[in-house]
Amino acid sequence: MSLLAVGTVAIDTIETPQGKVDRVVGGAATYIAWGASYFTKDIRIVSIIGEDFPQSELELLKKRGVDTSGIHLVKGGKSFFWAGKYHQDLNTRDTLETQLNVLGDFDPVIPDEYKKSKYLMLGNLTPSVQKAVLDQMKTRPEIIAMDTMNFWMDTAMDELKEVISRVDLLTINDEEARQLSGEHSLAKAARAILRMGPRYLIIKKGEHGALLFDNNNVFFAPALPLYEVFDPTGAGDTFAGGMMGYLAGAGEIHFENLKRAIITGSAMASFCVEKFSIDRLKELSQEDIEDRLDEFVKLVHFEL
Amino acid sequence: MSLLAVGTVAIDTIETPQGKVDRVVGGAATYIAWGASYFTKDIRIVSIIGEDFPQSELELLKKRGVDTSGIHLVKGGKSFFWAGKYHQDLNTRDTLETQLNVLGDFDPVIPDEYKKSKYLMLGNLTPSVQKAVLDQMKTRPEIIAMDTMNFWMDTAMDELKEVISRVDLLTINDEEARQLSGEHSLAKAARAILRMGPRYLIIKKGEHGALLFDNNNVFFAPALPLYEVFDPTGAGDTFAGGMMGYLAGAGEIHFENLKRAIITGSAMASFCVEKFSIDRLKELSQEDIEDRLDEFVKLVHFEL
Repeated sequence: MSLLAVGTVAIDTIETPQGKVDRVVGGAATYIAWGASYFTKDIRIVSIIGEDFPQSELELLKKRGVDTSGIHLVKGGKSFFWAGKYHQDLNTRDTLETQLNVLGDFDPVIPDEYKKSKYLMLGNLTPSVQKAVLDQMKTRPEIIAMDTMNFWMDTAMDELKEVISRVDLLTINDEEARQLSGEHSLAKAARAILRMGPRYLIIKKGEHGALLFDNNNVFFAPALPLYEVFDPTGAGDTFAGGMMGYLAGAGEIHFENLKRAIITGSAMASFCVEKFSIDRLKELSQEDIEDRLDEFVKLVHFEL
Repeated sequence: MSLLAVGTVAIDTIETPQGKVDRVVGGAATYIAWGASYFTKDIRIVSIIGEDFPQSELELLKKRGVDTSGIHLVKGGKSFFWAGKYHQDLNTRDTLETQLNVLGDFDPVIPDEYKKSKYLMLGNLTPSVQKAVLDQMKTRPEIIAMDTMNFWMDTAMDELKEVISRVDLLTINDEEARQLSGEHSLAKAARAILRMGPRYLIIKKGEHGALLFDNNNVFFAPALPLYEVFDPTGAGDTFAGGMMGYLAGAGEIHFENLKRAIITGSAMASFCVEKFSIDRLKELSQEDIEDRLDEFVKLVHFEL
């Protein structure tokens, strides 16, 4: 089924305890598309870039069956740029530089042929931009998922809540769930957030895994204990990509498929962090993915 | 099979965001014995108390089949006392007062009839005291498990490592695993710690669950997302108690049983935090425990 991803396509400079890379490919939509591309075809991206974004990277996406014609190229413009440095624990990072560049004027135009996309993933963006996307859809997607972050809770809570009320699935991290709900207990936070509109809530806990809630069920997807995390950048978006790609490939939305989807997303995220940027995601085989999924099964399987 | 628990039997004053209790029952061995008592009989405690420790609490333990004759009562002495206050997030706490009292002179004497105990759990104590226990055993237990904490890593690392080299199973939290191994990655930390001697390592991550490692396998036991945590005190010891109780009841030690054991320990810990002190552990039915175990199965079960 068709999957539309709206989000940043960016250039990152990243320093981690394992090394440093300059001006590599990043952005939520990039990671989402790569993560999804192993599970479904007919993926479309809506985003904005400048002339500095490498054409070769768009070609690679196209080769994976991703339609990049919705990525608006601004002549003479520069792509969204982020530079950051991760601390030793890899859970905290300092933003060294943010240049909005062309993203500052991002007013997404959804091409007509994307307006009936069956699956929609809204990457982390200004809530008003996420809203503008929803307003342009001609038929309601079977599932609308969105990601967001604490920055929008601090600066645009009302608009954020309006968007949240219109989606089916929200992904946020544990601290954001606490901020959004005002509840410390994640079980209570989930109950409060599901009352805001979404049918499903995924609380991402990084190296501690992810929790999936609906009004009647809770499921926990572990993170694989990794020997080495090279670069955490994009792990959350790759998770979302693997999840939405799995759902679009499966074509049916219910709790059991959601469970499989977030295990799949967790597996893709575990690859993402093994190299800088999207490097590891570029080289995966179907067998790599199946082996990794088997590790997840083994990690939590028990019989009483 | 017989289970010997050596650890503190104490009096606590606890403040959490949910309330405050004065001079309630606490101590590692207390929680271990209560946690284990639902899964095995023939539990023995070696500890030390003062005259202020309520006799009625010892009677309750006896009624659950726990042999308390190894708890040395110091005439005119006062029990180990700890007062603490938990912060809103319940993961951090301030120690308001610690009175070692009779614990300062704790030189454990293992009664002859305990010296062939099949299962041994060393609660968190000075490494020299843990060592003194090991030296008194007449036959090597089928499994020796120990708990410890960062304080001993800071003050008695050499002696601690000697004790660790003599046990089969070590339980520590994630930060302690990092400190003990010098590795940030828990997978690397586990490899390093298993080289120090133990066959099994359990890394406790509180609300994020627990990881079990041996040299060939890794297993993750989730924590249940709870609506309300009343009092985290003793959760780690109750976990250890449920785990060792399960193993002693099962009577066979292999990775599959270890997995069941730490799920059982996690279930018991999830009860422990629902009320202050050991209050919740006192009132459980077999059905409560089975229902809780089912929740754990449901929480992580998926089929690809």
